[in-house]
Amino acid sequence: MNDFRIQLRVTWVETDAAQVVHFTNYFRYFERAEEEFYNKLGLDFLSLSKYNVWLPRVEAHCKYLSPCRFNDLIEVSLRIDKIREKSIHYGFTINNLTTGKKSAEGYVVAVAASIT
Amino acid sequence: MNDFRIQLRVTWVETDAAQVVHFTNYFRYFERAEEEFYNKLGLDFLSLSKYNVWLPRVEAHCKYLSPCRFNDLIEVSLRIDKIREKSIHYGFTINNLTTGKKSAEGYVVAVAASIT
Amino acid sequence: MNDFRIQLRVTWVETDAAQVVHFTNYFRYFERAEEEFYNKLGLDFLSLSKYNVWLPRVEAHCKYLSPCRFNDLIEVSLRIDKIREKSIHYGFTINNLTTGKKSAEGYVVAVAASIT
Amino acid sequence: MNDFRIQLRVTWVETDAAQVVHFTNYFRYFERAEEEFYNKLGLDFLSLSKYNVWLPRVEAHCKYLSPCRFNDLIEVSLRIDKIREKSIHYGFTINNLTTGKKSAEGYVVAVAASIT
Repeated sequence: MNDFRIQLRVTWVETDAAQVVHFTNYFRYFERAEEEFYNKLGLDFLSLSKYNVWLPRVEAHCKYLSPCRFNDLIEVSLRIDKIREKSIHYGFTINNLTTGKKSAEGYVVAVAASIT
Repeated sequence: MNDFRIQLRVTWVETDAAQVVHFTNYFRYFERAEEEFYNKLGLDFLSLSKYNVWLPRVEAHCKYLSPCRFNDLIEVSLRIDKIREKSIHYGFTINNLTTGKKSAEGYVVAVAASIT
Repeated sequence: MNDFRIQLRVTWVETDAAQVVHFTNYFRYFERAEEEFYNKLGLDFLSLSKYNVWLPRVEAHCKYLSPCRFNDLIEVSLRIDKIREKSIHYGFTINNLTTGKKSAEGYVVAVAASIT
Repeated sequence: MNDFRIQLRVTWVETDAAQVVHFTNYFRYFERAEEEFYNKLGLDFLSLSKYNVWLPRVEAHCKYLSPCRFNDLIEVSLRIDKIREKSIHYGFTINNLTTGKKSAEGYVVAVAASIT
């Protein structure tokens, strides 16, 4: 599979007093790519929930390579690294198109769970 | 009733690139006071939900008087301005104890709704 | 001036345990429209800051009319209600295109300030 | 060194539509412990910045073991796992005191950088 890619613009509220994107928001960019990926497939988290299935995260990791600043245009790439019977392992890369630098890379592991 | 008061310390993630607390976070400080107020009364939003009651907001307002910065100690005061049969009108004041200045004042109106 | 409009999709992190968008996030949607409006004009908050000008908020208000849920497509409309020598008064409306209902309306007042 | 510990109560805005704390907020809990740790030492991020030093994150990781819900009382433990000449490696554990379960464990690596 090719990577799935979305572009986002960094918003003011995502920055912190160091005038860069707060480190926790990169995980939110990851999740935004995941949401758009499911939309592209015609699924969404809610349609999954109709089957009483939910995808809680069990692990998340990010390496920060170069900061993003307000109004930078960034591209988030998602790839499926592994699918097991009950888990899915996403890999993510964030490229800062404004600076031309790779900004971050990380992964998230989600599992299929019944909603109780 | 006397005002109900809580103290909070401004965290890094609440600041933005202007090195002050982002304006939307003042509403989150208001809500934190409301949550602690219900805890003090031995109620919480979840215990309300056991009775199939929920308190969605119908209006929120804030005036910003003086900025708060990272690590400032602030005091959020909540008072009940009005209770009607199906609505509650909270008034809030935020004092910045680090600078000695009044930082913000606002109000939030919530209504009792059945969970559907 | 015609209204300036952007479309956004509600993300998972913006929802709360009532399974609707948290009330504070509507103000973040307002600000997103404002950022895109300045981008459209070829300005941005940072280019303003090159002139040592900054636009802190002095007032914010929102009325909540109908909830937004995960993955709803929403449209945020911004209009300039008033411009004074040192202040700007924006009006906002949020329409939920998924439900066909008006979701919220509000305003934000910002002032021009020197960065010190 | 013994672990440094803080207690926090889960707030409404930190939950998502699955009625649990959104996975990115655990990293915010980690950072809150770090901020209080520096306050306890009589330092803060801002006093570091007076020496033109800043502590950007280069890596962050979390494993999610058991969900936290609205109003749960949680304890965040911070320990210094490694200090190198230019980096610091924090380890974190989050225990949910309301459920009695370990909720998460993770680490964050920060580096000392000059502010430019």
